[in-house]
Amino acid sequence: MLDQSADQARVAALLRARQPGHTLPAPLYTSTEAYQADCDVIFSRHWIAVGVACDVEEAGDVISVDIGPSSIVILRDDDDALRAFHNVCSHRGARLVPPGRSVVGKLVCPYHQWTYDLSGDLALAPHMGTDFDRGLHHLKPVALRDVGGILYACLSDDPPKDIDALAAVMEPRLAAYDLRNARIAFEQDVIEAGNWKLTMENNRECYHCASNHPQLSLSFHAADFGYDPEGLTVAEQAEANGLLDAYARQGALWERDGLDHVAVEHTVGWPTNFRTQRLIIAGLGESQTPDTRAAVSLPLGTAGRPGMGDVHLWGINSWNHVMSDHAVIFTAFPLGPDRTLVRTKWLVHRDAVEGEDYDLENLTSVWKTTNAEDAHLVAIAQQGVASAGYRPGPYSPFTERALDEFSTWYVDRMTANGYGA
Amino acid sequence: MLDQSADQARVAALLRARQPGHTLPAPLYTSTEAYQADCDVIFSRHWIAVGVACDVEEAGDVISVDIGPSSIVILRDDDDALRAFHNVCSHRGARLVPPGRSVVGKLVCPYHQWTYDLSGDLALAPHMGTDFDRGLHHLKPVALRDVGGILYACLSDDPPKDIDALAAVMEPRLAAYDLRNARIAFEQDVIEAGNWKLTMENNRECYHCASNHPQLSLSFHAADFGYDPEGLTVAEQAEANGLLDAYARQGALWERDGLDHVAVEHTVGWPTNFRTQRLIIAGLGESQTPDTRAAVSLPLGTAGRPGMGDVHLWGINSWNHVMSDHAVIFTAFPLGPDRTLVRTKWLVHRDAVEGEDYDLENLTSVWKTTNAEDAHLVAIAQQGVASAGYRPGPYSPFTERALDEFSTWYVDRMTANGYGA
Amino acid sequence: MLDQSADQARVAALLRARQPGHTLPAPLYTSTEAYQADCDVIFSRHWIAVGVACDVEEAGDVISVDIGPSSIVILRDDDDALRAFHNVCSHRGARLVPPGRSVVGKLVCPYHQWTYDLSGDLALAPHMGTDFDRGLHHLKPVALRDVGGILYACLSDDPPKDIDALAAVMEPRLAAYDLRNARIAFEQDVIEAGNWKLTMENNRECYHCASNHPQLSLSFHAADFGYDPEGLTVAEQAEANGLLDAYARQGALWERDGLDHVAVEHTVGWPTNFRTQRLIIAGLGESQTPDTRAAVSLPLGTAGRPGMGDVHLWGINSWNHVMSDHAVIFTAFPLGPDRTLVRTKWLVHRDAVEGEDYDLENLTSVWKTTNAEDAHLVAIAQQGVASAGYRPGPYSPFTERALDEFSTWYVDRMTANGYGA
Repeated sequence: MLDQSADQARVAALLRARQPGHTLPAPLYTSTEAYQADCDVIFSRHWIAVGVACDVEEAGDVISVDIGPSSIVILRDDDDALRAFHNVCSHRGARLVPPGRSVVGKLVCPYHQWTYDLSGDLALAPHMGTDFDRGLHHLKPVALRDVGGILYACLSDDPPKDIDALAAVMEPRLAAYDLRNARIAFEQDVIEAGNWKLTMENNRECYHCASNHPQLSLSFHAADFGYDPEGLTVAEQAEANGLLDAYARQGALWERDGLDHVAVEHTVGWPTNFRTQRLIIAGLGESQTPDTRAAVSLPLGTAGRPGMGDVHLWGINSWNHVMSDHAVIFTAFPLGPDRTLVRTKWLVHRDAVEGEDYDLENLTSVWKTTNAEDAHLVAIAQQGVASAGYRPGPYSPFTERALDEFSTWYVDRMTANGYGA
Repeated sequence: MLDQSADQARVAALLRARQPGHTLPAPLYTSTEAYQADCDVIFSRHWIAVGVACDVEEAGDVISVDIGPSSIVILRDDDDALRAFHNVCSHRGARLVPPGRSVVGKLVCPYHQWTYDLSGDLALAPHMGTDFDRGLHHLKPVALRDVGGILYACLSDDPPKDIDALAAVMEPRLAAYDLRNARIAFEQDVIEAGNWKLTMENNRECYHCASNHPQLSLSFHAADFGYDPEGLTVAEQAEANGLLDAYARQGALWERDGLDHVAVEHTVGWPTNFRTQRLIIAGLGESQTPDTRAAVSLPLGTAGRPGMGDVHLWGINSWNHVMSDHAVIFTAFPLGPDRTLVRTKWLVHRDAVEGEDYDLENLTSVWKTTNAEDAHLVAIAQQGVASAGYRPGPYSPFTERALDEFSTWYVDRMTANGYGA
Repeated sequence: MLDQSADQARVAALLRARQPGHTLPAPLYTSTEAYQADCDVIFSRHWIAVGVACDVEEAGDVISVDIGPSSIVILRDDDDALRAFHNVCSHRGARLVPPGRSVVGKLVCPYHQWTYDLSGDLALAPHMGTDFDRGLHHLKPVALRDVGGILYACLSDDPPKDIDALAAVMEPRLAAYDLRNARIAFEQDVIEAGNWKLTMENNRECYHCASNHPQLSLSFHAADFGYDPEGLTVAEQAEANGLLDAYARQGALWERDGLDHVAVEHTVGWPTNFRTQRLIIAGLGESQTPDTRAAVSLPLGTAGRPGMGDVHLWGINSWNHVMSDHAVIFTAFPLGPDRTLVRTKWLVHRDAVEGEDYDLENLTSVWKTTNAEDAHLVAIAQQGVASAGYRPGPYSPFTERALDEFSTWYVDRMTANGYGA
């Protein structure tokens, strides 16, 4: 918290000790030092998913989002521009905006009524005297980027430039869904009893799906996330080959329709970690719902074809499934070494009406269920890595390659940002 | 907790980094190191307000008061003397006295029945053998001082001598109210989600009152706590001038009646920080109640005149309002870097009868409401200073001069007590 | 948590500062550093009581037991052997077995279905590829020892050899009770708000019994745990002499019957701290029940004589009372510097039927009541040692000799295991 040179050296030693192909040394998942280092490096110097453009639909709409111990304000300015600021009054530091959503004309600090324009300019500061230069006390801005309707923020004054790569890949893939003009049908916060990296590792594999996510597995092809070709039963081999055939057929159709589908990976070697791919939805192929049919009768944007599959997007602290009828946007925020907030937003067409165009329980059932199952898995993983008997274990080269790369990326990013030798 | 030399150096560096006129560097409000340092220096080597003489009205009355991780016993001895001891048995260290109030003949440790006279002498220690010297195991005394009925304790063996200055100023100002013979009509504990210094800063200004304390503002002149003369509206200017006129008139009357009223400040440069002034009560001018009239029909002591105003007294961890009909005594105790206990006691004449001489809700309403409002403000200030976006901000030279001085005093005291360069 | 050399040096300095005959320096009871050191040394390199053989009566029975941040699995293998493993999957570290009891054919990790035989061999690891060597990933074994039906585990690869001394003394003393074939009639977990060493100190003396345990005192002779012969009243002296006479008479009978009864102490100078003695039960002499009569009509094993008294056994983290009709087995596990789990198991003959052979409330009343009383005492002791006013106090040479030895043993063991000068 104060001068961290001894702590930094200890975290650096742990980063150096990581073995390729294996999970991380335990204290990187459990110690306060590593948690603070993660907040300082990963969550303060990288582009972090923080919400969606339709969180703030109209001028004056404001949300606050906590990122570790920090908090930011995201708002839509009178000129319709999206802006973000640290949620900290320049006077005595009070939180300007309460948790959740609000609608404002100006940002008025509840403490002493320091008043800021939506541009962040300090418009009013009572009792500060005639010599006081309000220009020196505007709100501290936060870099914000809208990528196809998903919002990314970076607390650093020097945000990584490769956010452009994310935008270049994702804008065309997300365009048809017009997420910027969607509506949030439901939002859920779950606190997982584990380190944020275990939350992200858990999300980056479907090795655990068959045994733990019976409902999700109806619409999910676990084989999309890898498998050991030598270890399959005959039936599994047939299923895997069938999926390969389906991708060949569907890929041709998607290409005919101008729908990008091939996997793009932008992970090790880059600050802005992401991976995307268009996935075939299992079952009837329409949506991640209990019956694998579309949950919403009014499709998103111009995505009028259930056959468009699932635009899957992973990021540093997020995962997303964008389907024809709805999108599910997940963000994860660290609350402590062993606590992580997972926030899930279900997006539908802004004109879709609950009870008419969709049933809310049917829309949200799969991922509410899956989130609860994942929270349990992350909790038992955290308990395990905190045990004296834990040793870094081997990732499967088939089903956990993405985790190995995530851990490698993590070590690289920390090392490059002050936690090197 | 153990040897703290590295921690001490970090706290010292933060103290040196403080800019005059500005709030403190964040870790002084948020870190465990600074919290422990505050407990060691401010709360262990200074005179801390701990209660009132009428907490222990009669011989054998005992209260325990927690000061950070420590606990003290305050009691009235058989010879009517007030005494204080560490609330720690000399045998195995158990808490001698439970939380709250009790009445005892001797202090008997519940663990093994070691028994102490009210003088702290060890009178009985079973099974310790004939060679055991009880004289070596008396209770460890704590310095205690009764200033006009308000009790101050110092955990140090070498308490600051300038408590005499507090006594010299306050004894005559408090004499008419005879607080030593008052009665506690109500007591309330509130836990604020903030550092104790934010609790104290919040209390030392009324810049926040108009927007946050509508009920208190009926009996409180916010202008008493400063204002920017250039920034007032015409109406505000007229009101401020009216208050100045009122003080001129009322001051003459107070002087005629021998009532000290001018402000005395004993802050930067002294260990025992205090400020006092006699304030005019707003509205009908009688008391801090919802209708600004006296809440109690029987006045305190010989203070039979509502026109006596409000004897306001600030200290290191306390603030007080002593009015003709009742007094409100506040003490604040640190519970952690971001948790502070605020204890409020409402004192009335010892013969005043609830339901006859006063209505309890009417008596306590203003400050119960104000305490709840302040707890929220301290909580959002704590959230803010813990954020990455926090930078020490400027105090108003008009309305926050007392906070600037408090912060300066704090830095000086810490620096002078082991946290220097 | 990470590299602990500075922390180690601080703990070592505290250990050196301990004065013989006195309680420990405060931070050894209160600091995070000392807690972690205790987990590393006492609870990881010594034989710790973890349960009873009848926790896992049949092949496939499994329990998990948490030891500080670690967790172990204890199970009965298909060949009826007792085994213990770290409760950590070799893959991603997840907890293999949930809290409490279960019955399994194999140990299947809930995360990715890695499957272990009850011998700990990795039998199945899907998707790991044909080159994967399962032999390198068996479960990490934990040393386990069954001493007369009480289970001891050691997390170290090099467990202390003097567990043999415990077995040599206790196997014959416990044989008649056949605890291996008993049944757990009731189990209770209590969390005490104190350091585990205060829990153990509290248990090692009965100085506090008369004033704090009225119910236990009916069946317990506090004088068994020492007294100051010079400090007794005439009546107490007569009682003490009566007890000495009773031991002379009863000892002769026990010797005639081949029942070991003399005290054996194996404490300072040994890793595996224990003390045992056969005690006379007070009152009617049968059992630790509210009326001091046997609670269970069917005696344990072949212990058909109430006159066999109470085989009392203390260990590092345990205390036990084995009587003719039932046994009470206590284990204590550290949860934090100031939190300790106390787990109590009441054992009866496996064929004893609740409601017929015993009344559960009558069986468990004395120790449920005593545990609650002790939890309060440990809590006030913890509050005291955390106070600025605490100084290490003197142990009674008559009633607290065993505590002095426990503290000396603790300092020795820590010093010998990396916390020396």
